[in-house]
Amino acid sequence: MEVTNRYITIKNNIDGVPQHSDFELKAADFVLSLQPGSKDVIVKNLYMSVDPYQINRMKSYSSTQTTTSFGYANAIHPGEAIEAYGLGKVVASGNPDFQKDDLVVGFLSWGEYCVIKPGGMLSKLDPLGFPLSNHVGTLGIAGLTAYAGFFKVCKPKKGEKVFVSAASGAVGNMVGQYAKLFGCYVVGCAGTKEKVVLLKEKLGFDDAFNYKEETDLKSTLERYFPDGIDIYFDNVGGEMQEAAVDRMNIFGRVAVCGVISQYTDEKIQATPNMVDVVYKRITIQGFLAGDYLNLFPEFVSRTSDHLRAGKIQSLEDIYDGVENIPSAFISLFQGKNVGKIIVRVAKD
Amino acid sequence: MEVTNRYITIKNNIDGVPQHSDFELKAADFVLSLQPGSKDVIVKNLYMSVDPYQINRMKSYSSTQTTTSFGYANAIHPGEAIEAYGLGKVVASGNPDFQKDDLVVGFLSWGEYCVIKPGGMLSKLDPLGFPLSNHVGTLGIAGLTAYAGFFKVCKPKKGEKVFVSAASGAVGNMVGQYAKLFGCYVVGCAGTKEKVVLLKEKLGFDDAFNYKEETDLKSTLERYFPDGIDIYFDNVGGEMQEAAVDRMNIFGRVAVCGVISQYTDEKIQATPNMVDVVYKRITIQGFLAGDYLNLFPEFVSRTSDHLRAGKIQSLEDIYDGVENIPSAFISLFQGKNVGKIIVRVAKD
Repeated sequence: MEVTNRYITIKNNIDGVPQHSDFELKAADFVLSLQPGSKDVIVKNLYMSVDPYQINRMKSYSSTQTTTSFGYANAIHPGEAIEAYGLGKVVASGNPDFQKDDLVVGFLSWGEYCVIKPGGMLSKLDPLGFPLSNHVGTLGIAGLTAYAGFFKVCKPKKGEKVFVSAASGAVGNMVGQYAKLFGCYVVGCAGTKEKVVLLKEKLGFDDAFNYKEETDLKSTLERYFPDGIDIYFDNVGGEMQEAAVDRMNIFGRVAVCGVISQYTDEKIQATPNMVDVVYKRITIQGFLAGDYLNLFPEFVSRTSDHLRAGKIQSLEDIYDGVENIPSAFISLFQGKNVGKIIVRVAKD
Repeated sequence: MEVTNRYITIKNNIDGVPQHSDFELKAADFVLSLQPGSKDVIVKNLYMSVDPYQINRMKSYSSTQTTTSFGYANAIHPGEAIEAYGLGKVVASGNPDFQKDDLVVGFLSWGEYCVIKPGGMLSKLDPLGFPLSNHVGTLGIAGLTAYAGFFKVCKPKKGEKVFVSAASGAVGNMVGQYAKLFGCYVVGCAGTKEKVVLLKEKLGFDDAFNYKEETDLKSTLERYFPDGIDIYFDNVGGEMQEAAVDRMNIFGRVAVCGVISQYTDEKIQATPNMVDVVYKRITIQGFLAGDYLNLFPEFVSRTSDHLRAGKIQSLEDIYDGVENIPSAFISLFQGKNVGKIIVRVAKD
């Protein structure tokens, strides 16, 4: 059987802030059956993730594209299908590990259908009674990033003071919720009044502020952290990181999860004061969730329990239709998103 | 008995590169006996250390002075005696742990005599058959800094590629020697041709270069580390740190031991690329030897064995006389020193 597969490509490399004109919706004939002997898996995409790091794959050059240990660092070329994390349903499988109609998560693509070659990242999914979209956000890679970053990189102790930037974002909101459940004092920053209210009233952050209303981040952090910061979960880099290092306590830890400000403007960089780093014995550590896939079962088990008990809220912002993937992706860089942005390509 | 104690003070706070005119040699009457009931220890200073971090204590303001966990972060005020690590001999003791003529190491002062109050850092020294000066350098805090920084902060694996800046300095030269003994590939940088020759021919570094002859540090490091850097032992901060992060392999580690470039010029700062820090999962960690005093026995035991076996060279640059302490200290900031700079205040 043949269908039309609509999918998104980039028309050109993107070296700044992504625009609608950088993307194109294409349509191509797509065969839903496999050649005899094929070991491929054909997947119908249901829920697709859009993530800030993908902009680095779309650039004409980025040092990240040569970081060979993860496939998802590879460059995306204009006209090609765009790989992304997502959830789908198996249409046909030449791989004995997968059967027709299995739900799967893994590296699919920004389109209606995709073919996963042997070696591609794909796992069977038990939805555990949760909405499917949760498995692309709270129970997916974004959640794992928060879980591994907070517990394994930040190595928290109860009562420590935790600061989270982009705190209403896909990863930040989960970090704050984990930190509160763990017994830390948590302050988040975000870019609108509504987000600040959400952090304090819905997610239980001890406090939150709108960084756009602040003129001197160092004194802002002094106000919110009179006893200093022990852990800074950094989603943005730049000036906010400098201010956090300035306010950090001895043996403070900065987990650098992402540098969204720098992804679209290389001139925005962080200059953390190295004298502070030495004297306060600060650790600044970058990490990627891909190094913590072994934690996935533990992460899903604990997070599911918290979700069922109503102790963690799943914040999602769902766009509908493959044609809206570019809008969803662009919104990441406009600070519009609350929680995890997901595109529902098909309902089942 | 009363003597004249000659000692060094600062005439004013020092906020830039230290000059001779910032220092003063003073002389004052000094009583060599204790009041009845006193628990003080009177020490005749023999070998005194001069260390870059001391400049931060001499500033009119430095955030380092408020890092309360170490006494040696405290501000030094003009006219006061200047605390410093050193080796001396007990003249009189009201502390039952010390007897007259005991050799001691600890926080003494830049003068001929000092009084150590209860709670001051002071330990009895067994010279183990080594020249006394060794206990202020190779077997003192400088050596411990190298030992703890390399083995505990850098967590090396055999065969890893190690880069050391200020590699002929008190700490750097020891790091390089430890790294070679451990089985790493080691490249050092220094600021003169003579130092480069020394690193390669006397200390056994695999390679070394004069950073003053280089115009583009990133391509320099590409040349010396075609397979990337796994560990950067950072004594200088600034542009060299940025270049090292650029050249770093995945899971690379930067141990920030000191930021000498920034101590005398706050405008010199490091802007390590945080995108690299994330994607290459780099850890940048500041440390102070004071956190590793528990390693002292292990460090002395291993390092003594290496010294006796001729596997580690003790690099010392000895100045004579209390009046030459300012010259010795100033030389630290002029890149003149080779190895550990020590001032012999008295021979015994």
